Amino acid sequence: MTVEFTQEAGEVNAVTPNRAPFLRKHLLGLEDCTKEEILRILDEAKGMKEIFTRSVKKVPALRGRTVANLFFENSTRTRTSFELAAKRLSADVINFTASGSSVSKGESLLDTVRTIEAMGADFMVMRHSASGAPLLLSKHIKSSVINAGDGQHEHPTQGLLDMFTMREKFGTLEGLKIAIVGDIMHSRVARSNIWGLTKLGAAEIRLVGPRTLLPPWLDRLGCRLYHDLDEGIRGVDVINILRIQLERQNQNLFPSIREYQLLYGLTPQRIAQNCPDAMVMHPGPINRGVEIDQAVADGPNSVINTQVTNGVAVRMAVLYLLAGAPGHEAE
Amino acid sequence: MTVEFTQEAGEVNAVTPNRAPFLRKHLLGLEDCTKEEILRILDEAKGMKEIFTRSVKKVPALRGRTVANLFFENSTRTRTSFELAAKRLSADVINFTASGSSVSKGESLLDTVRTIEAMGADFMVMRHSASGAPLLLSKHIKSSVINAGDGQHEHPTQGLLDMFTMREKFGTLEGLKIAIVGDIMHSRVARSNIWGLTKLGAAEIRLVGPRTLLPPWLDRLGCRLYHDLDEGIRGVDVINILRIQLERQNQNLFPSIREYQLLYGLTPQRIAQNCPDAMVMHPGPINRGVEIDQAVADGPNSVINTQVTNGVAVRMAVLYLLAGAPGHEAE
Amino acid sequence: MTVEFTQEAGEVNAVTPNRAPFLRKHLLGLEDCTKEEILRILDEAKGMKEIFTRSVKKVPALRGRTVANLFFENSTRTRTSFELAAKRLSADVINFTASGSSVSKGESLLDTVRTIEAMGADFMVMRHSASGAPLLLSKHIKSSVINAGDGQHEHPTQGLLDMFTMREKFGTLEGLKIAIVGDIMHSRVARSNIWGLTKLGAAEIRLVGPRTLLPPWLDRLGCRLYHDLDEGIRGVDVINILRIQLERQNQNLFPSIREYQLLYGLTPQRIAQNCPDAMVMHPGPINRGVEIDQAVADGPNSVINTQVTNGVAVRMAVLYLLAGAPGHEAE
Repeated sequence: MTVEFTQEAGEVNAVTPNRAPFLRKHLLGLEDCTKEEILRILDEAKGMKEIFTRSVKKVPALRGRTVANLFFENSTRTRTSFELAAKRLSADVINFTASGSSVSKGESLLDTVRTIEAMGADFMVMRHSASGAPLLLSKHIKSSVINAGDGQHEHPTQGLLDMFTMREKFGTLEGLKIAIVGDIMHSRVARSNIWGLTKLGAAEIRLVGPRTLLPPWLDRLGCRLYHDLDEGIRGVDVINILRIQLERQNQNLFPSIREYQLLYGLTPQRIAQNCPDAMVMHPGPINRGVEIDQAVADGPNSVINTQVTNGVAVRMAVLYLLAGAPGHEAE
Repeated sequence: MTVEFTQEAGEVNAVTPNRAPFLRKHLLGLEDCTKEEILRILDEAKGMKEIFTRSVKKVPALRGRTVANLFFENSTRTRTSFELAAKRLSADVINFTASGSSVSKGESLLDTVRTIEAMGADFMVMRHSASGAPLLLSKHIKSSVINAGDGQHEHPTQGLLDMFTMREKFGTLEGLKIAIVGDIMHSRVARSNIWGLTKLGAAEIRLVGPRTLLPPWLDRLGCRLYHDLDEGIRGVDVINILRIQLERQNQNLFPSIREYQLLYGLTPQRIAQNCPDAMVMHPGPINRGVEIDQAVADGPNSVINTQVTNGVAVRMAVLYLLAGAPGHEAE
Repeated sequence: MTVEFTQEAGEVNAVTPNRAPFLRKHLLGLEDCTKEEILRILDEAKGMKEIFTRSVKKVPALRGRTVANLFFENSTRTRTSFELAAKRLSADVINFTASGSSVSKGESLLDTVRTIEAMGADFMVMRHSASGAPLLLSKHIKSSVINAGDGQHEHPTQGLLDMFTMREKFGTLEGLKIAIVGDIMHSRVARSNIWGLTKLGAAEIRLVGPRTLLPPWLDRLGCRLYHDLDEGIRGVDVINILRIQLERQNQNLFPSIREYQLLYGLTPQRIAQNCPDAMVMHPGPINRGVEIDQAVADGPNSVINTQVTNGVAVRMAVLYLLAGAPGHEAE
């Protein structure tokens, strides 16, 4: 057995032993993270991923700490990823969903969260349909708040796992050309990617989609906008396809699934013509045959399952680093 | 690391080492507990609360034991508190709710519980809308049964955590004057408080509420009844406000939320006038602006969040002590 | 403390140390298991059951491994049994139900399962209404797949726990006469019993039920068919009563509950007349007073609760043996 972590305070930084302490207590978005903080998380995640190859895929780093998953929007995928990340650090996990909780008895969000904090939760992993809900929370409680997706604002751990996956292949994000394709307007995944990639020196971030889903003010984020898919992905290193929310059709934001697929569906042909070596990413769950062709999703360019694995490693790194921040209750 | 517990049988009473063995196997209500048993639980809970301040907030006392949470009524709050209490003692927890279980396939309650026991559950933590359901259970199974609220009968761990919180501030319950305010008639919280406080020597227990929620026979429990809030809280050490079940309005038990609030809502003014130093408690979830004013809930007299923290400590103590009782399966 | 397991690879076969390695990676059904494999699981389960009598009912054999419970049909009973089996081997467990998952967002079953595998699940315990779903899964993923009931096909761990319970009483299955009573046509429990018992040398397997639930082709499985209950159970060693799915009435497969009970309900009288020492089994949940009389379910012939206990032991043995198979990810 080669577990390197111990729960002794002095050895808490075993993975990257000679680094400066990580001072951030909450992870609310990548917009307010520095380049150094993002790189530190990505470095730490590398060590975490290494744990998955051991015979005992678990370390005692957060033994005795409690992670509360507060998901006010459905997401088994992200919740389970955080749950596994916490368990691999030996933390206890409590899952809390809106339905069946005191929230349904009319209790305010803040009272609910304060109650969970008073029970001893050290981390609040929160998904909420309201942009800014995790920020609000972080101002009123002492536990660490991790944004697991808030409205159309940010989904920082998704941004981090996307960057981790790019860095794993290309070594660095500096100089990379990335196309993000789809419903940029409503996407917190796109926002977290844009903030993070910009800070880490990506050469070009292109946003590709129909005019209805790609308002012109998005160029203020330093991105170039494309309405033609072939043009948008020509010569890029990475294509990050977003999930189309099929229910958006009713809002007349795009004419039909069939038309979306024809204009913006990623096919092997388009890749072969425009960027044969591009890495294809998707945050999942995928709509096969809509935004992404079956053959692309399962093809050699796709790293979709690797993203999922990396998500657990990145979330372990985030939990681990936030736990070491000064001011953290149990430090 | 300073964990003092071990899983060795001989050291099981580490927190209060020289005490007589705790002989009770079930916790069904405070009515049938002795003063000594209640004090023993409260003493043990003090040691448990101390664990929360350690860097590893966990002890191996119940490693290998299984706690089954059987909640036939919704209660994320109490269930989560028991779940965390069990996990901090290193027990395994299984959550079992009525919906989606065999109960919905027409299986009898007793068959369901016997099945869970046969799987190896050592503790059955049960909430049920029928008064007496945990008692019935305790007569038919070998595991320890803990009543987590049964109908309008008792909610003993809530009573214990309320008493723990009073004792933490006042040192003793002897001589205290306590006002319980609200829907006494339907409240298992009130009943457990009354039984426990009486046994531990409280000087005066006042029950305050409208005539419809405060039937005259309640004075048989040794309490004084008040229908005027100011009079009821005058000079008390503790005010315990009960949650108003808003759905009771339809039963014409009180005229309107607005009228209830005017007559029985606890405001800063009422406290200032009648008992400026009184400790204000509420079992939660609170209806802000109904039975308790915003400024009181968040004000200096309130110990509502402390109650939540103490709830975990008290439940750890209960699990721990019941586990040591003779006749307990794993002793 | 007498835990014998360790997580060191070399000691993984502590319970049956001198046995050949177990080569099977998935458990999809008993039809494709050899007699030796079945016996090996039953032997190992004996050691697992012994753990339940220890003061610490837990071993670290699967520490750091993850068991995913994928239940696309409701079953608290089987899911909880697997959950406890996993926890007693110190594995982490994630529960995944169809409702509220990405499956409800239109994701394909295979994409969902691949995602869970990519997060690091080592075992997929799957219940699905489609016969063959676990087999399909096993062809596309690297984790171990355990069939927890698929359509009308098999429920191998139920078959194994039934055989374990018979073996516990009779020492061997060779020469035993077993009657399986009820809705054989739709029963995966019956199928797994028939395959397993046949391989292990049962002398006679009788299938008993009305013509509508007992199609003539069932004799091809090597069983004898009976439509009269008394005749069917005369002289048997074991009666295994199946649960009647009450909703089948609407399909006109039997005239009424009352008639079914009269013709096929197992009563103390029928046992006394035909097979006074027969062991009575039922996979649960039972319909008291329908397929089984109250007095039989709770009577001296019944081993229904023992079956539940044995279920946990058998599932521990299955998880443990599959984990040691070559090609298993963490081996």
